[in-house]
Amino acid sequence: MIITLKISGKFFDEENSANLEIIKKSVLSLLKNEHRVAIVTGGGGTARKYINIGRRAGIREAHLDLLGIWASRLNAYLVAFYLGELAYSKVPESLEEFIEKWGTGRVIVTGGFQPGQSTATVASLVSEAINSDLLVLATNVDGVYDKDPRKFNGAKLLPKLNTEELKRILEFSQSVNAGTYELLDPLAIKIIERSKLKVLVVNFKNLDKLLDIISGNINTGSLILPV
Amino acid sequence: MIITLKISGKFFDEENSANLEIIKKSVLSLLKNEHRVAIVTGGGGTARKYINIGRRAGIREAHLDLLGIWASRLNAYLVAFYLGELAYSKVPESLEEFIEKWGTGRVIVTGGFQPGQSTATVASLVSEAINSDLLVLATNVDGVYDKDPRKFNGAKLLPKLNTEELKRILEFSQSVNAGTYELLDPLAIKIIERSKLKVLVVNFKNLDKLLDIISGNINTGSLILPV
Amino acid sequence: MIITLKISGKFFDEENSANLEIIKKSVLSLLKNEHRVAIVTGGGGTARKYINIGRRAGIREAHLDLLGIWASRLNAYLVAFYLGELAYSKVPESLEEFIEKWGTGRVIVTGGFQPGQSTATVASLVSEAINSDLLVLATNVDGVYDKDPRKFNGAKLLPKLNTEELKRILEFSQSVNAGTYELLDPLAIKIIERSKLKVLVVNFKNLDKLLDIISGNINTGSLILPV
Amino acid sequence: MIITLKISGKFFDEENSANLEIIKKSVLSLLKNEHRVAIVTGGGGTARKYINIGRRAGIREAHLDLLGIWASRLNAYLVAFYLGELAYSKVPESLEEFIEKWGTGRVIVTGGFQPGQSTATVASLVSEAINSDLLVLATNVDGVYDKDPRKFNGAKLLPKLNTEELKRILEFSQSVNAGTYELLDPLAIKIIERSKLKVLVVNFKNLDKLLDIISGNINTGSLILPV
Amino acid sequence: MIITLKISGKFFDEENSANLEIIKKSVLSLLKNEHRVAIVTGGGGTARKYINIGRRAGIREAHLDLLGIWASRLNAYLVAFYLGELAYSKVPESLEEFIEKWGTGRVIVTGGFQPGQSTATVASLVSEAINSDLLVLATNVDGVYDKDPRKFNGAKLLPKLNTEELKRILEFSQSVNAGTYELLDPLAIKIIERSKLKVLVVNFKNLDKLLDIISGNINTGSLILPV
Amino acid sequence: MIITLKISGKFFDEENSANLEIIKKSVLSLLKNEHRVAIVTGGGGTARKYINIGRRAGIREAHLDLLGIWASRLNAYLVAFYLGELAYSKVPESLEEFIEKWGTGRVIVTGGFQPGQSTATVASLVSEAINSDLLVLATNVDGVYDKDPRKFNGAKLLPKLNTEELKRILEFSQSVNAGTYELLDPLAIKIIERSKLKVLVVNFKNLDKLLDIISGNINTGSLILPV
Repeated sequence: MIITLKISGKFFDEENSANLEIIKKSVLSLLKNEHRVAIVTGGGGTARKYINIGRRAGIREAHLDLLGIWASRLNAYLVAFYLGELAYSKVPESLEEFIEKWGTGRVIVTGGFQPGQSTATVASLVSEAINSDLLVLATNVDGVYDKDPRKFNGAKLLPKLNTEELKRILEFSQSVNAGTYELLDPLAIKIIERSKLKVLVVNFKNLDKLLDIISGNINTGSLILPV
Repeated sequence: MIITLKISGKFFDEENSANLEIIKKSVLSLLKNEHRVAIVTGGGGTARKYINIGRRAGIREAHLDLLGIWASRLNAYLVAFYLGELAYSKVPESLEEFIEKWGTGRVIVTGGFQPGQSTATVASLVSEAINSDLLVLATNVDGVYDKDPRKFNGAKLLPKLNTEELKRILEFSQSVNAGTYELLDPLAIKIIERSKLKVLVVNFKNLDKLLDIISGNINTGSLILPV
Repeated sequence: MIITLKISGKFFDEENSANLEIIKKSVLSLLKNEHRVAIVTGGGGTARKYINIGRRAGIREAHLDLLGIWASRLNAYLVAFYLGELAYSKVPESLEEFIEKWGTGRVIVTGGFQPGQSTATVASLVSEAINSDLLVLATNVDGVYDKDPRKFNGAKLLPKLNTEELKRILEFSQSVNAGTYELLDPLAIKIIERSKLKVLVVNFKNLDKLLDIISGNINTGSLILPV
Repeated sequence: MIITLKISGKFFDEENSANLEIIKKSVLSLLKNEHRVAIVTGGGGTARKYINIGRRAGIREAHLDLLGIWASRLNAYLVAFYLGELAYSKVPESLEEFIEKWGTGRVIVTGGFQPGQSTATVASLVSEAINSDLLVLATNVDGVYDKDPRKFNGAKLLPKLNTEELKRILEFSQSVNAGTYELLDPLAIKIIERSKLKVLVVNFKNLDKLLDIISGNINTGSLILPV
Repeated sequence: MIITLKISGKFFDEENSANLEIIKKSVLSLLKNEHRVAIVTGGGGTARKYINIGRRAGIREAHLDLLGIWASRLNAYLVAFYLGELAYSKVPESLEEFIEKWGTGRVIVTGGFQPGQSTATVASLVSEAINSDLLVLATNVDGVYDKDPRKFNGAKLLPKLNTEELKRILEFSQSVNAGTYELLDPLAIKIIERSKLKVLVVNFKNLDKLLDIISGNINTGSLILPV
Repeated sequence: MIITLKISGKFFDEENSANLEIIKKSVLSLLKNEHRVAIVTGGGGTARKYINIGRRAGIREAHLDLLGIWASRLNAYLVAFYLGELAYSKVPESLEEFIEKWGTGRVIVTGGFQPGQSTATVASLVSEAINSDLLVLATNVDGVYDKDPRKFNGAKLLPKLNTEELKRILEFSQSVNAGTYELLDPLAIKIIERSKLKVLVVNFKNLDKLLDIISGNINTGSLILPV
C-alpha cells in the first residue's frame, strides 16, 4: 500500500523529540510491512510566528504564505534528517520535484509547495500523484465529529463518512489568509473527490499504531470514503 | 500602475501571429505610459490535446495537470520570445521564481505553476504578490453577464459588479478535472477577495485598446471590485 | 544490451493513445529481457505549429529551435508519465542531466537539448554517453532505401549498409532551419562514426516487435554498421 | 561605499516588527546616500529551537548545522520581504549565488551557506567577495571590551583596535558545535585578515544611526582595523 | 552594435595576466562606445590536458567533451572575474541560460554548452540568439588565407570573403573527436549561414584595437560575409 | 564501513592515467567488501595555475577560491567519469547536494564547496554528514611525523596519535590565502574533533592496498584518533 501521512505543524511546536519518535515508529512499522510512505508536514508555531511578525509589518499575503511554506519545510527537514537513511534528505519544493524524488524508493518528506495552497492540499495532490491508497491526517482530535466537539457536548465521532457528508459538516471558512487554513479546505476536498482518495483522520498520538488501525485491530479515527 | 494580463489559452490555437501582435501592442502602450506588466498565459488547444491523449491512456489527474502546465509554458515562451527585449526570456515555474524575475523590471510571462491551480489562480497569486492595481482577464466574451449569454437571450452585460455578485452569478463547477477550469475558479476568487484585487474582464480583441478602456475613454468589459 | 529508441515526433500528432501503447509494449518486452532503454522523442506537429507561428512573427532561429525543443519535451513528458514507474518522471534538459538521471536505473525519456541540434543528434549523443549497443530510429518508412522511394518506383530497401554508404545515399540538406532536420543530419552521423554506433532504422508500427527484429526472428528495417 | 550588515539572529526572536523597522531605516538612509548594502542574518531562537530538538533526537552535527542554516534563511526572507522592492526577493544559498545576485544592484539578504561556517564567516566572505568597505556587526552589546563586561566590573569599551588585539581579547571557543558560534570565530577572523576588512561592532539599537556613526557624528561602537 | 567575441582557449595557456588585460581593454573600449559584448572562451591547454588523460584512460567521447566544456568554463570564469562589475559573474551552461543572463545588460562570458558542439558553434548560436551584428574570432593567425600558410609560401590573406568561398578553402576535418574541432566546424558555418551572420577573423594580439578595425581605421583580419 | 577518501590535487597533475587506476582499484576492493566510499579531490596544479594568473591580475581572494574550487571539480569529474557506473556522474556543489546524492548508493565524488573552506574541511564535513567510519587522507608522504621530515633528519613517523598531539605537531599556517591550505587546517580539525572522526594518513601510492592497511595486514600510514 502507498500511504501519505499529513502531520499537523503543531506537533513540532514542543521542543522535545518524542513526537519525532512517534513519526519514526509509524514509518518503520509501515516500511517493514512493505508499504511506501510519503510525509507532508504543516508549518505550526514557527509558521505562525513568522506570519504574525510579517503581517504586523505589512508584508503581503502571498509573501506571508511563502514564510509559512519555508517554516513547513524546516519541519520537513527535521523529520527527514531524523529518519536518516529511510528518507530522502532533500525536501521537494514543488509537486514535480516530489514526483521525481518519489522515484528513488525512499520516504519523501515535504512541506508546502505554493502560496494559496494549504499543506492539506499539498497532501491531496501528493496522494493523487503517487496513487496513494490512503491519506492519513494526523491531528489533535480523535476524528471527524457530527458537530464541533469544542462547542457541543453531545458531539459524536463518525467512524465512517463520505465526502458529501464531510462537506456538510465542515463549515468551510471562506478566508484563505495565510496560516488559517482548516484541516481540509475546499481545494483539498476537490482533489480528494476528483481522484476518489480514501482519507483517514486520526489522533497524532495514535500514529504509531497506524498498522493496527488500518487492519481494523484498533478502532479509532474517522474514515472518509469517496461517494 | 502594475497590471497583470491573463490571456486565455485559446488565443494561441490559431496558427497565425495576429494575436501575438495584439498582445505586443497592448504591452507596448502600457510600458510607454510607465505601467509595469505581468502576463499569464493559459494552455489552450495544446493543453487540451495532451490532456486528452493522456486521459484516454489512463494517466493520473495530477500528471494531466502537469501536461497542461507545460503546454501553457509553451504559450508563455512564444509570447516572451515575441516580446524580445521587453520581456524576460525565461518562463518562471513557481510563484517564488516569478517574484524573483519580477525584480528585473521586465515584463514577466508565465504559464501555470502547480497541479490543482488554474492559470486564473496563478494570475491572482501573481497579482497579489506584485501588488497589481488591476488584473485583466482577456477572454472571448465581452465581459460578465447577469446570466449565461449562450443560453439566455436577454442576458445583460454588467459594466460593474462586486465579488459577492460575481459569486452568485457564476455557478461554480465543482469539478477540477485537468483542463476544465472556469474563467475564475473558487480559489482564484478567494485570492482576489483576501487581497481586494480589482479585476477587469475584456474581450481579447479589445486588448490593444486597454489604455483607453482603463482611462474610461472606451466603455467595454466588466469591472469587478472588492466588496 | 543498452538500447536507445528515437521516436519521431509525428507519432504524437494523432490524438489517440495507441502509439503510446506501442512504445510501452516495446519498452516492457525489452526490460523483461534485462535490456536497458533510453528514449528520445521528436517535436512533431506541436513543434511545427509553434515554429510556424513564431517564424511568421519574425522570431529568431535560435528561439524557434527552443520552441521546438520545449514541444519535444512535452512529448517526452507524455511518454514518461504513461510509462509510470518504469520511467524517470523528469525530462532531462541537457546531456549532463541525462547522464545523471541514467544512473537511477530507470528508463529515461528526453526531448531536445540545445538549439542547433536535431533530436537525432541528441539520440546519438545519448547513445554515445550511455554506451548504447543499438540506436533504434523508429520512423514512418520501412528502412533505408537505395533511392528516395517517394520519387523512384524501383527503390530497394537495404537490409544492411555502412555509414559511408548511408552518406552517399542521403543528400544532406544544407539547411538547418528549425524544424526541418532530416532523419540523420551530418552532426548525428559524425557522432555515430566517432563512437562506432550501430543504428537500426525501423517502421514505428513494428516497434513492439523489436525483440524479434533484434534477434533476427523477424526481417525488417535497415541496420547501419560502422565502417 | 559598500557595506555589509551582519544582524544577529536574536533580533528576530521577539514577535514584533520594530526590529524590522530599525533594519529598514538603516538600509534606506544608506541607499539614499548612494551606498550599497548586503545583509547577513543569523538564525537566532528559531535555529536554536530546531538544533535543540535535533540534538536531543541524535541528529548529526552537519545536519544540525543545516537546520540552523535554514532557520537563518527564514530570517533572511523576512527581511527581504519587508524591504520589498529595495531587496532581491530570493535568499542566496551559496557565495556563488550571492555574488551572482549582487550584480542586480539590489540589497541582497542572505542567511547561512554551508555547515561548519558561522554566519559571521558568511558575512566575512560576502564582504570579501563584494569588496565591502565596512563590515558592520549589529549585536546586543555596545562594542568590544578589553575584558568580558558580563564578568568584570571595570571592563572598558575599546573604540578602536586591530585584529591582533581582538584575537588576544577573544578567548576563542574551540567548540564548533552547531549554534554555539561566537561573534567572530577564527575562520571569520582569518578572512578578515587576508582581505584586510574593516569591521564595526555596534549595538543593534543604534543601527538606524549608522550613517552618523560612520561619519563620526556619533561616537559609539568599536572599529576593528587590519594590522 | 552587438558583438560576440570568441576567444581561442590557447590564450589562457600562458600563466600570465597580459592576455586578460587585452580582453579587458577590448571590452572596455567597446562598452564605452555603447556596444554590447558577449564572450565565448575555448578550453585550450586545460581542456587538452583533461581530455588526454581521459582518453588514455578509456573514458567515452561524450564524457571527454564534458571535461573540455568544464575546462572552457574555467577560462570563462577567469575572464568574468577579471572583468568584475562589467560582467555577469555566473558562466551560463546552456543557450537558454545565456539568453536569460543576457537580459541583465552585462557582458556575459560563457564556455561550452553541450557535447558534440565546438565553442565556435556555441559562439554562432549565441550570435544568432542575441542578434549579434558581428562575430569576432580572435585566433593566432592574421585571418583567413587562400591556402594553409603553414604549408604554402605564397598563401595570401583574404581581407573579405563569403561563406561559400570559406567552405571551399577549409578542408573540413570529418573527425569530431573531443578537442580537435577546427576554427569553424560545419555546424558553426551552417548556423552562420542560416542567420546570415557577419564574421571577423582577427589576430588575438590585435583584439584591443577592435574598434579601429571595425571602423576601418586599421586594416587587418578577414571579414566573412553571408552570400 | 563508510570510508571517505580525500585525494590530494597533486595526483592529477601528471598527464597519465596510472593514478586514476590506483583510485579505481582502491574503490573496487572497498566496494567488493561491502564498504561505501565517498571521494573528495583537491585542485592541484590546475587550481594553482588559475589562482596564480588570477592573483597576478588582481582578482579578489574569494573569487580565487572559486577558481580553485572549479579546478577541484574538474578533477572530481575526471574521477567520476573514470569510475563509470560505480560513481554518480554529477559532482555536488554543496554539502546539501552531497548528502542528497549519497542517498543513491553510488560512490559520490566531489571537489570543493565554498570559498574559505579547504578540500580537507570538505572531506571532514562529508565524513561527518555521512557518518564515515574512517577519513583517509591520501597524500605524498607516508604519514604524520613528529617533526617536519623535509627539515629534520631524525623525524619519526607516528603510527598512531590523537588530535591533541596532531595540533601540537602542526604549526598551523595562519594564512588562508586561496591555494595554500595545509593537509589539515584548523577548521577541518575542529570538525574532526566535534564529531570524533577517525583519520588515516597514507601515501597515495599505497591507496590500492587500503583494505590490507585497514585490517592491519600492512603497517603503514598514521592513524589519528579522537581524544
